[in-house]
Amino acid sequence: MTKFPRGIALLGSTGSIGQQTLDVVRCFPEHFRIVALAARSNVSLLARQAHEFTPKLTACFAETPEVARAAREALPGVVLGEEGLLAAATHPDVDIVVAATSGLMGLAPTLAAIRTGKTIALANKETLVMAGHLVMEAAQDAGVSILPTWQMGPKITVDSATLMNKGLEVLEAHWLFGIPYQRIDVVVHPESIIHSMVEFVDGSLKMQASLPSMHLPIQDALSYPVRLTTSGTGLVRELHWAEVARLNFEELDSTRFPCFRLALEAAKLGGTYPCVLVGADEEAVALFLAGKIGFLEIAELIEAVLERHRPDAQPDLSVILEVCAWARRTAQEIYEQHLLL
Amino acid sequence: MTKFPRGIALLGSTGSIGQQTLDVVRCFPEHFRIVALAARSNVSLLARQAHEFTPKLTACFAETPEVARAAREALPGVVLGEEGLLAAATHPDVDIVVAATSGLMGLAPTLAAIRTGKTIALANKETLVMAGHLVMEAAQDAGVSILPTWQMGPKITVDSATLMNKGLEVLEAHWLFGIPYQRIDVVVHPESIIHSMVEFVDGSLKMQASLPSMHLPIQDALSYPVRLTTSGTGLVRELHWAEVARLNFEELDSTRFPCFRLALEAAKLGGTYPCVLVGADEEAVALFLAGKIGFLEIAELIEAVLERHRPDAQPDLSVILEVCAWARRTAQEIYEQHLLL
Repeated sequence: MTKFPRGIALLGSTGSIGQQTLDVVRCFPEHFRIVALAARSNVSLLARQAHEFTPKLTACFAETPEVARAAREALPGVVLGEEGLLAAATHPDVDIVVAATSGLMGLAPTLAAIRTGKTIALANKETLVMAGHLVMEAAQDAGVSILPTWQMGPKITVDSATLMNKGLEVLEAHWLFGIPYQRIDVVVHPESIIHSMVEFVDGSLKMQASLPSMHLPIQDALSYPVRLTTSGTGLVRELHWAEVARLNFEELDSTRFPCFRLALEAAKLGGTYPCVLVGADEEAVALFLAGKIGFLEIAELIEAVLERHRPDAQPDLSVILEVCAWARRTAQEIYEQHLLL
Repeated sequence: MTKFPRGIALLGSTGSIGQQTLDVVRCFPEHFRIVALAARSNVSLLARQAHEFTPKLTACFAETPEVARAAREALPGVVLGEEGLLAAATHPDVDIVVAATSGLMGLAPTLAAIRTGKTIALANKETLVMAGHLVMEAAQDAGVSILPTWQMGPKITVDSATLMNKGLEVLEAHWLFGIPYQRIDVVVHPESIIHSMVEFVDGSLKMQASLPSMHLPIQDALSYPVRLTTSGTGLVRELHWAEVARLNFEELDSTRFPCFRLALEAAKLGGTYPCVLVGADEEAVALFLAGKIGFLEIAELIEAVLERHRPDAQPDLSVILEVCAWARRTAQEIYEQHLLL
C-alpha cells in the first residue's frame, strides 16, 4: 500500500501513544487524516482532539455512567462502549487502525479491523502475547499487515525494570515474525540506539538504529512501506556518531530477572499460559504502583498465579478473556490472603 | 539470479582475495564451480589451483618471457597475456566474474565481462574509482549487477594507515550506489564490527555487522541475493554480543589524514583526477614500501602529482590508462628529482 492520504482510526487517542500519533499526523497533513478517535475516559482531551482533527466518528468506552454522560454532552454523536471501538476500527474510510488502548480492550476491535482488511499499527503487546495465534491467523487470512510500534506508560516503566517487558517483546517477536523461541535472543544495550538485529544464516547481521524516539516507529508504521522525511518536523533528532561515541552490550543475567524467566517459560508452554502471565502481571504491577507489594514480590506473585493455572492449549477469544480475568482475580486473592511467602 | 551451481571466473586467483574465494568455493561444491582461473605470475600456485578445481580455462598474464615459458610448461593450453584475462572473463560458462586482480589490470576484462552479461564481484577499488562512469554505465546497459567484496594486501595496509583506503571507499560507494558525495559520511569505528550504515529520510538507520571476515563478503557476492549457511564451514565466526561488549565511534579528523582529504578533493573534481590519485598513490606506496620515502611523504607526493595534472572531464578507457601511467611516471620523477619540500 503506497497511496496517500491514509485514513486512520486511533484507538486510545488520549494515551501516550495516541497523543504522539496525533503529533505525527499533525506534521503530515497531506499523508494522514484522522477518520475515527476512540478513548476510554478522558473526555475533555478527546473533545479537544475531535475539535482539532474533525474525525467522522468519535468513540468513548466510558466504563461509568458519569463518563458516558460527559461524553454525550461534549461529543454529539459519540458512540459509547465496546460498540464505539468496533465502529471506529471498522469504519469504511479507515485504512490503518492504530491499536493503542491498554490491556485487553483492543483485542476484539483489532480482530474486527483485521477481518475488514485494515492495516494494524499495534502499540499493544498484550494482543499478540495472549492471542498471537488468533491475530496472526486472521491477518494471514485477510492479507493484512501487522506493524509494531513503540509502547510507553507507567505500567511499562515497571515492566521495563523487571524485564517483563523484554520477555513480552520476545513473545511479540515470535508472533510478528513467525520465529521459534530458540532463535530469539536478548542482549542488554543501555544506550537504546540499536533497536533490533536480525542474524542471517551466513553470519551477517542487519540492525536498525536511531536515537530513542516514540514518534519514529509510529510514523514508520503509518507510512509503511514508504518513509517520510522528518527533517524540519522536529519529530526525530538525527543521529550523530561522534556524539554517540560508544555503544555497550552485555549478556542478560536472567537469574537476576525472574519476570523475564517467567515470560520465557510461559512462552514455551504456550496455550493460555501467556494470558495468565499478562493478567497476573497487570495486577501485580497495579499492586506495586499502589504501594501494596514490594518490587521483588511482583515476580513472586506472577509465579504463584502461573502455578495455580490449568492450561488450555488452543484458546479462543472468550477463553482468553476469561483466563486473563481469572489470573487478575487470583493474583488479587493471593495478595489479600497473604499467601506469598 | 537464484540458480545454482554458478560458474565462476576468478581473475587474480593467487592473491589474497583469490585464495579466499577458492576457500568459499571449496565449502560449497554444489553451489559454485570454477570455470576459469587467471593469475599474473605465480605459476606454481596457479597450477596447484588448476589441479584441484579443474577449470575449463587457465590464463596467465605473464609479464616476462620466463613466466610465460613456465606457465606453458605447467599448464598445457594456458592462454597468456591480456587475451587470457579477456577469455576468462567472457567464457560462455561463466555466470560471475570475481575481479580480484590488483591495480588497473582488471579494468578491460571487467568491462568485457559486463558487456557479455556477467555478474561482477568486484574486489578491486581502482576499477570504480578511476572508471566508475564507464563501468556503471556499461552495467546499466547490460542489466548486470556489480557486487563489492572485501579487499586486502600490503598496499591496502598502507592505504588503511593513511586513510587513502577510506577515501577510495567513498568514491567506490558513490559509484556503486549512485549517491552524491555530500551524502556520504565516514565515521571511525576501531572494532570493525559495523561495516556499513544507511540513513533514511525519516532519521532511521540500517547497519550491517559481522565479525571482520574476508570470506563473508566474498561468499555473499558469489551467492547474492541468496544467503548460504556458513555454520559448520569454519568460514565465518558467529558474533556474540557479550564478547563484543563495546563498539566505539569517533569523528574522522581529516586534518590528520591528508590522503583522505586528497581523495575527497579528487572525487569532487571528478574527471581524470581520481585516476591521478590512484596512479600517484600506487607509486607513492611502492616508494614507501621500498623504504625510499617516509610515511608523511606519501600524501605530499600524491598532492604534488595532482597539482601538475591537466584534467579531462569525460575520459574514455584509453585516456584513463594513459593518465594513470602519467601519474605513476610523474610521481617517480618528482621523487627522483627531489622536488618534494
